Amino acid sequence: MTRQDANSAWAKDRAHVLHPYTDFSSFKDEGSQVITGAEGMYVTDSDGNRLLDAIAGLWCVNIGHGRREMADAISDQVMKMQYYNPFGHSTNEPAAELGAWLATHAPGDLNHVYYTTGGSTANDAAIRLVHYYFTMKGQHQKKKIISRNSAYHGATYVAAELTGIHATKMSFDKVGEHFINHVSAANMYAKPDDMSEDAYCDFLVQEFEDRIEQLGPDNVAAFIAEPVMGAGGVLVAPKGYHRRMWEVCKRHDMLYIADEVVTAFGRLGHWFASEEVFDYQPDILVAAKGITSGYIPLGATLISDEIYEVISRPQCEGGVFSMGLTYFGHPVACRAALTNIEIIQREGLLGHARNMGKHFQETATGLCDLEHVGDVRGHGLMLAVDLMADKTTKTPFPVTAQAGANVFRTCAELGVIVRPVGDRIVLSPPLVIEKAESNQIYSVLRQAISGLSAG
Amino acid sequence: MTRQDANSAWAKDRAHVLHPYTDFSSFKDEGSQVITGAEGMYVTDSDGNRLLDAIAGLWCVNIGHGRREMADAISDQVMKMQYYNPFGHSTNEPAAELGAWLATHAPGDLNHVYYTTGGSTANDAAIRLVHYYFTMKGQHQKKKIISRNSAYHGATYVAAELTGIHATKMSFDKVGEHFINHVSAANMYAKPDDMSEDAYCDFLVQEFEDRIEQLGPDNVAAFIAEPVMGAGGVLVAPKGYHRRMWEVCKRHDMLYIADEVVTAFGRLGHWFASEEVFDYQPDILVAAKGITSGYIPLGATLISDEIYEVISRPQCEGGVFSMGLTYFGHPVACRAALTNIEIIQREGLLGHARNMGKHFQETATGLCDLEHVGDVRGHGLMLAVDLMADKTTKTPFPVTAQAGANVFRTCAELGVIVRPVGDRIVLSPPLVIEKAESNQIYSVLRQAISGLSAG
Repeated sequence: MTRQDANSAWAKDRAHVLHPYTDFSSFKDEGSQVITGAEGMYVTDSDGNRLLDAIAGLWCVNIGHGRREMADAISDQVMKMQYYNPFGHSTNEPAAELGAWLATHAPGDLNHVYYTTGGSTANDAAIRLVHYYFTMKGQHQKKKIISRNSAYHGATYVAAELTGIHATKMSFDKVGEHFINHVSAANMYAKPDDMSEDAYCDFLVQEFEDRIEQLGPDNVAAFIAEPVMGAGGVLVAPKGYHRRMWEVCKRHDMLYIADEVVTAFGRLGHWFASEEVFDYQPDILVAAKGITSGYIPLGATLISDEIYEVISRPQCEGGVFSMGLTYFGHPVACRAALTNIEIIQREGLLGHARNMGKHFQETATGLCDLEHVGDVRGHGLMLAVDLMADKTTKTPFPVTAQAGANVFRTCAELGVIVRPVGDRIVLSPPLVIEKAESNQIYSVLRQAISGLSAG
Repeated sequence: MTRQDANSAWAKDRAHVLHPYTDFSSFKDEGSQVITGAEGMYVTDSDGNRLLDAIAGLWCVNIGHGRREMADAISDQVMKMQYYNPFGHSTNEPAAELGAWLATHAPGDLNHVYYTTGGSTANDAAIRLVHYYFTMKGQHQKKKIISRNSAYHGATYVAAELTGIHATKMSFDKVGEHFINHVSAANMYAKPDDMSEDAYCDFLVQEFEDRIEQLGPDNVAAFIAEPVMGAGGVLVAPKGYHRRMWEVCKRHDMLYIADEVVTAFGRLGHWFASEEVFDYQPDILVAAKGITSGYIPLGATLISDEIYEVISRPQCEGGVFSMGLTYFGHPVACRAALTNIEIIQREGLLGHARNMGKHFQETATGLCDLEHVGDVRGHGLMLAVDLMADKTTKTPFPVTAQAGANVFRTCAELGVIVRPVGDRIVLSPPLVIEKAESNQIYSVLRQAISGLSAG
């Protein structure tokens, strides 16, 4: 069946599906690439091209594509108990088992889980929980949230407001401006060259303190941050940053929300990165993506014993905790998560990710000698390459040059999928990646970037 | 394994899962009922009790539980292509196929779909789309949304603000008060007894007109309404209400958002209820629940050609439509939807639901002779029974009497699951229900309600 056939998936998609982050100026002509198959590290499109998936779907397919064990567990759960109302005093076995697993493995006393259907809803829920918590404590004014520029926290209206990639919010309204604030991203590439890492960290911490003073500590409820910024550019904060920001939170009776949608479940070689990699103990931790490796939608908002203790005080006679999605603790999603975790454990994928992460980062630095590579940075199995027209002066390409899109296209022609976010190339391969595949990714990327002209 | 065993699902759930709508005053002692099996019209709990599920999970398991055909299709899709990035120009076959199916079957020119993971995210997205649409049209002030008291629109922060069941929002903040307004519910049971249905409809339409005038028509973007209010009490509007509210919207250049999360996919005997049952053509239609019968989380926000035409104008050079969830158009969820639709079609479940709906409603009216039944109402396969201490004076039970909870418990002991929303009993059985099951539900319900004392 050709693309032009009105019955093709390509034609149906172009006519009827309103894709996220679509550039309509080209979409109406080009339509979409139809991905029809997926196995291990590879996906296949409807033209028969087999492509190395160096972005794990979208930061999520950690165990790789098309696992028989996942299909079997999911199918088994569908037949056993595919759905029942999770409201009130009702549960299912996978939701309970996964809750206990999360409580055991999440840092510190994050012993309670509120389930959602992905990262956006889990971040959105985190904000509702923070507000509810301080209301229950009688601190009715303590409701403002501080997020960061370049942060990505999702696409519900409130999650989009938390997001600090301001271009993504253009033409939408500001529904949370009265309670959501943004401070600077911890962006080592953007810091002045003559400023030391320590001095930059001091600057960021001081800015945070100043903002809290400005808003009034009694008005500020929480800080939300990704351990390593994902969509905002794989920004790795200066050494000690998270711990120090966390200490500021504790000093001001603020909650620290760790958005680990990208970093949890192995991307940095650990189940969770906050404590083990960055040495701080969040009060709320948000997970999604890797929790099921994207096989079935699921998100989780983990809260501390202290928050649970306050939230679980009945707010009035007959009062209930009035918040929840139909698909809270969905049995098929939770079963997918449990099987995914079993695979990561049995195959030692956390250790493998730590080892391969080193190789992945080391190989990447080899790109630095290219004329149009301004910066290469990352942690574990997440990495970004900033394309620059002039790397010495850090001058970006003009938008019209479409540098990122061109590198994406060349890589695809050479059999590798990378992700362009503007003129930044982002990589986040499945954890099952081996050295040969890692080398192939960088060899193809080198070739594609080398082909760029100054524009 | 006993409940008291720390390794039981019951114990793990109680210790670690923060359920929606939990009454913590009893949860910490009682914990949850663990549903371990589900088949057809029945679910089974961990004590071996087999229960007739008269609520279809939570308004969603329309084709019934545990279908082998669903398990097989889901498993097949997991092996074929379980997930790939839907951002930009990328799609998968089930998302494209489902998009075309929705465009063909949804009323009028609702030809474009934005996918989400459930009803909350689909309503939340609808509001973002409305704001984006009017901004793109240069109507920057036209952003206010009118919803209704007693409406239920979900649990993201903005969806919860749309919701008009005000008790559910207690102790949360008002993040949308500056742009979300509520008018009266169309509640025939609450209307003055000496007011005719037509006069009541006039009153509601006039109130709506007045509110629009008060806010200024240039400031009001949209009206959102369920065709039949679900969680708010299965409130069926007076005859002609929706059509007239829609006409008011058209007169003021406002969009009409039909929240068909509960009503679509057969609950009223049609794929969609807005046009076929209530004779109006929404500009945006929100579906979820029945779209997959709850087997896999999925939501869909359908928009008209006109909205698509405006939204799909590139907002600037290189500008993209910046909104989307990781699990947009999830292939496993969309495949589940396609198989679900195939089953509904092949088994003639829409016609069956229309027939059984009549029987279901007729049998229900038999409850009206009971002392504590204030009202029985519904449409198709959704129904509510209002419990009243004194039906003549419409005096409710005191909260402490826990009338709804008691009826729920007695019904469960007699083998039938109903849903208590306060002192209202809500029913929404799978579409595959037969007369014998319908009769059993009402016989058990009659027995349970008869056992209530005036409290």
